[in-house]
Amino acid sequence: MSAGSGQMGGPMLTVGSVALDSVRTPFGEVEEELGGAASYASVSASFFTSARMVAVIGEDFPGRHVSRFASRGIDLAGLERAPGKTFRWRGYYEYDLNQAHTLETALNVFETFRPTLPEDYRHSPYVFLANIDPALQLSVLDQVRRPKLVACDTMNYWIEHAHEAVLKVLARCDIALVNEAEARELVGRPNLLACAREIMNLGPGVVIVKKGEHGAMMLSQGGYFVAPGYPLEEVKDPTGAGDTFAGGLMGYLARCGETDDAAVRKAMVCGTVMASFAVEDFSLDRLLRLTQEEIADRYHEILAMTRVEAF
Amino acid sequence: MSAGSGQMGGPMLTVGSVALDSVRTPFGEVEEELGGAASYASVSASFFTSARMVAVIGEDFPGRHVSRFASRGIDLAGLERAPGKTFRWRGYYEYDLNQAHTLETALNVFETFRPTLPEDYRHSPYVFLANIDPALQLSVLDQVRRPKLVACDTMNYWIEHAHEAVLKVLARCDIALVNEAEARELVGRPNLLACAREIMNLGPGVVIVKKGEHGAMMLSQGGYFVAPGYPLEEVKDPTGAGDTFAGGLMGYLARCGETDDAAVRKAMVCGTVMASFAVEDFSLDRLLRLTQEEIADRYHEILAMTRVEAF
Repeated sequence: MSAGSGQMGGPMLTVGSVALDSVRTPFGEVEEELGGAASYASVSASFFTSARMVAVIGEDFPGRHVSRFASRGIDLAGLERAPGKTFRWRGYYEYDLNQAHTLETALNVFETFRPTLPEDYRHSPYVFLANIDPALQLSVLDQVRRPKLVACDTMNYWIEHAHEAVLKVLARCDIALVNEAEARELVGRPNLLACAREIMNLGPGVVIVKKGEHGAMMLSQGGYFVAPGYPLEEVKDPTGAGDTFAGGLMGYLARCGETDDAAVRKAMVCGTVMASFAVEDFSLDRLLRLTQEEIADRYHEILAMTRVEAF
Repeated sequence: MSAGSGQMGGPMLTVGSVALDSVRTPFGEVEEELGGAASYASVSASFFTSARMVAVIGEDFPGRHVSRFASRGIDLAGLERAPGKTFRWRGYYEYDLNQAHTLETALNVFETFRPTLPEDYRHSPYVFLANIDPALQLSVLDQVRRPKLVACDTMNYWIEHAHEAVLKVLARCDIALVNEAEARELVGRPNLLACAREIMNLGPGVVIVKKGEHGAMMLSQGGYFVAPGYPLEEVKDPTGAGDTFAGGLMGYLARCGETDDAAVRKAMVCGTVMASFAVEDFSLDRLLRLTQEEIADRYHEILAMTRVEAF
């Protein structure tokens, strides 16, 4: 991270998927609802900073979803509409909501998407490379001039099928976001802390391991931090939780302009808060009716959950 | 919990197994080494308070293990030596150290163990009913006059084979300790928080769910608390981690004499500290060379791991 303390924040650019998701969980089902990593991350970030989205949608993408992005003040100059169909994902969850089962993925317009960033996007200080083909992540990163802070997400598919490109992305990131399985797959070790340490050696100064309902851990040169999962009695749909977490994390950092250990810790709690809301309903429904007051309340609820006195 | 604030603590009685364990993990192997829930819990508690142990050993139990208990100042008046062989457990762990695989359990002298408590044991203010036949837990509890604080542990075997007795134990406990699978099996719900809430309805005012490397959560009328797992790069043998956690938890409460929310939170961190040391080596080897200074240092390391500023 190149930023010192006390500097101003700025807009946050996200590249990733905008999708129509069909999801079934033990608690309900939706067909072709708004989804995609960039959607969750940008809407989540929009509660903290101005969000810019680089993605592609097809001719069939409903205008009401575009309006929902707009209602969150998201800059849509980088959202391209292309001939063809919107990216689609179909999947389900059993009672173990930590495990998504994919039934179908249709990249559609994403297969040929080669974004050219609008001029002002090239000066985005904060960049989040959400889960998408690492070649696309690199192409976007190449177009941004000296970003202040870059975070990336990935998934097992790219770790297996585009390993070299994933390593190239990691080498250019400040913050790497992975889940437990991805961490182990990336470096081939069983111990999570050892994995995080090895991922740090690949480039990122900060490695965040997302552990679903168990929260998230962060390893950096400054030390180790654990954000607990927020306890929810009713989780309706975990889709997008990780992307929402990343959006809250980066959105908070973009707002505060700091990148020291204390800021990243606060950012992780913001990410946890946003993810905990996202899973309370299907699609982005809960995020889109969220208020700043609810965010602040839950932030402090999480702080209270780990409060303990000295020995 | 019947105790008010500011009262004195006192000795802690543990009933449970003393065993000879044969354990294989990816990091080594031991044959017939000291093990058993009461051993781990009592040695762990002995760093905080005076510990009393109710258990049975066979004629073959090595004197050097008795000496190790004595070296921790544990009161052994309740440790009966009976004709026959000591309880034995044989098991192994794969790289997923959260999952113990049992190869053999031989109850031996525990099959006919019907303890009669020494007179001073009947006035133990703190009682930990470690994992053992719930009939045995009840028989010990019946002999203790008005204990100040009772905690119990159990396992899936008893939940399946002695369900009614397990419920009787729970109804008489202040603190219930369960792992994730036991919590779900006990009340048959997938959501962990919902499980903890239902277990509270069975009697205990405090329910603690142990989540292995992910730490532990506590639910009480006062609220919700999360103790993170201590990050270890090298775990040699997770056997006894849960018992060691319980011993540290109850040992701390026995020392401080308080039972309010703040005390239970501190006790959970003490349990986490003790468990994190226990798994660093096989059998009780690490616990038996532990110092008070190491305990205090790790306690504060864990506090630092969750420290985060207000929003």
